[in-house]
Amino acid sequence: VQTVSNLTEPELIERIQRLLPPPPDWLVVGIGDDAAVLAAARNRFEVLTIDALVEGVHFDRRFTPPAAIGHRALAVNLSDLAAMGAAPRWALLSFALPADYAVLDFDCLVTGLAGLAARHGVHAVGGNLTRSPGPLMIDVALGGTVKPRQAMTRKGARPGDAIYVSGSIGAAAAGLAMLRTTGLGGPSDGKGRADLSGPPDPCTARYLYPEPRVRLGLALARNRAATACIDLSDGLGDGVSRIAGSSGVGAAIDVDALPVEPGAAKWFQEQGQDAVQAAIAGGDDYELLFTARPRLHGRLSAATSHGQAPITRIGVCTVEPAIVLRGPGGVESPIPGGYTHFR
Amino acid sequence: VQTVSNLTEPELIERIQRLLPPPPDWLVVGIGDDAAVLAAARNRFEVLTIDALVEGVHFDRRFTPPAAIGHRALAVNLSDLAAMGAAPRWALLSFALPADYAVLDFDCLVTGLAGLAARHGVHAVGGNLTRSPGPLMIDVALGGTVKPRQAMTRKGARPGDAIYVSGSIGAAAAGLAMLRTTGLGGPSDGKGRADLSGPPDPCTARYLYPEPRVRLGLALARNRAATACIDLSDGLGDGVSRIAGSSGVGAAIDVDALPVEPGAAKWFQEQGQDAVQAAIAGGDDYELLFTARPRLHGRLSAATSHGQAPITRIGVCTVEPAIVLRGPGGVESPIPGGYTHFR
Repeated sequence: VQTVSNLTEPELIERIQRLLPPPPDWLVVGIGDDAAVLAAARNRFEVLTIDALVEGVHFDRRFTPPAAIGHRALAVNLSDLAAMGAAPRWALLSFALPADYAVLDFDCLVTGLAGLAARHGVHAVGGNLTRSPGPLMIDVALGGTVKPRQAMTRKGARPGDAIYVSGSIGAAAAGLAMLRTTGLGGPSDGKGRADLSGPPDPCTARYLYPEPRVRLGLALARNRAATACIDLSDGLGDGVSRIAGSSGVGAAIDVDALPVEPGAAKWFQEQGQDAVQAAIAGGDDYELLFTARPRLHGRLSAATSHGQAPITRIGVCTVEPAIVLRGPGGVESPIPGGYTHFR
Repeated sequence: VQTVSNLTEPELIERIQRLLPPPPDWLVVGIGDDAAVLAAARNRFEVLTIDALVEGVHFDRRFTPPAAIGHRALAVNLSDLAAMGAAPRWALLSFALPADYAVLDFDCLVTGLAGLAARHGVHAVGGNLTRSPGPLMIDVALGGTVKPRQAMTRKGARPGDAIYVSGSIGAAAAGLAMLRTTGLGGPSDGKGRADLSGPPDPCTARYLYPEPRVRLGLALARNRAATACIDLSDGLGDGVSRIAGSSGVGAAIDVDALPVEPGAAKWFQEQGQDAVQAAIAGGDDYELLFTARPRLHGRLSAATSHGQAPITRIGVCTVEPAIVLRGPGGVESPIPGGYTHFR
């Protein structure tokens, strides 16, 4: 097997460039110089984020195909920009590769990343390649644009605002648990790696290839339909807590309203877990959680008609700072928290 | 010893924010949301780069103090922007931290980075923190601005252009070799880590705390004094080869003209090495290597009077594509190459 240590850095860079679309007209200097040079977008604010995927922390190579690693490395950043209502534009890619990483796997990783980038009009304008003496690591910095005064933050929610979530929750957490339990969640290639030539379970697909809600974020921002917005990387419980904390409000979430992914609910129940609690605490959903003024419902209708994502009203912002789950019969309980990185 | 695993992610972020200066007026949304939002600079191109420092590849924690790791993580990126003639503006910081990394070391690392950032007017607008199951890793993405048509690249050199290098070469390579050999290069704190309370050797200081040539890069760009420019991260041999390759020229370098750092020359000779060859092949100098038209020497004088760095003319670009070293008596030999990351 040919590994990355058999190739020089220029050879690896050339392999990346081959998988990228032609450079856009705003790219003045692209890959191959000390830095990239871009013509700025007119009358726009710049929106910037960076996120890392670290082997052993964010993914397990035994059941995450290289293409999914590349896809997810960009998707988590696209989701951050979506939560701000920004249109993504450029990416900087930093790879730390174990010496024994197969060149074929490297190509698949870049292909997974480049495919998602192309679908969202993102161009990789530069990057960095280095050896890693340990885990495979990918850092993606992503830049985009938003019109002044259209950027969404976490802190505009007010008591009385309705709380919405896009799509469904719990699917990625169930998918990850399936992969961990079965080693796969789909057919295997016989070498302990997932073979996605057959149809994967919808939950594992959601974990491996999350679709960031870029269009919905843009539509919410353009229609000024949301008062606050966040993406669900660390679970719905974490997301509600963060919006509430940043905005200085509390929240009441209706358990019955939560759009728990049916396949995930079934799987969690089979494992003897409370499906709702598991879906609320589960990370990696990359849905948008946002708040909206009830009297501005027309804006929300306009936004969702262009956002290409179902949304569900799941609760309301409260004056009382607590964050509570309202179950059947009005019984209230504290919300399960999200994932914490260090502790 | 308190380690980063004793703290939550918000607590670590708060420690970073305490060490940063107040946000500039162009920062609309800073650390603490899904992404940062910036007001764009007017009539400027954006310049973007990303670079990683990986423990065990780019530094050794046994003789690189945390402040130096932080300093270098930003310096390597500042140097890339300097080579483009850009004014640095914002940074995104991504840290992958071993669970047992001491909080005090983390604070020192951030302090080293923040100190250099403040001196160059760079603001950390966002970032990411994650655990690392292996090495300490820091990825810094850096953005800056340049006036249209002032950006320097590697490909404008023509036969007859003079070749210049700023400062001196070989110091960082000698400093690294000293640190590897003696474990230090300065007094020790008794725990195998360098104690920089005493005066370090000038060469080890150059390795640990390189000063990127930001002002020189800006001055060269503003005066349009350079036809091509690159920063010396992987050695002078590598830098000359890359400018020559990108520009489609050759180069003849005068051995006697090379500004080898005296302390480095002495050290290499003591080790039985050819000092010039070692200085040419040695990386981490972060000087600027650039070419200039002889007939535009007035521009160069104007630039260097504002660039706050000595420059030395070391050779000339040639029609013949080879890259040669011209020694005493006109004897020519091939130039030693730079550092290769993968092979």
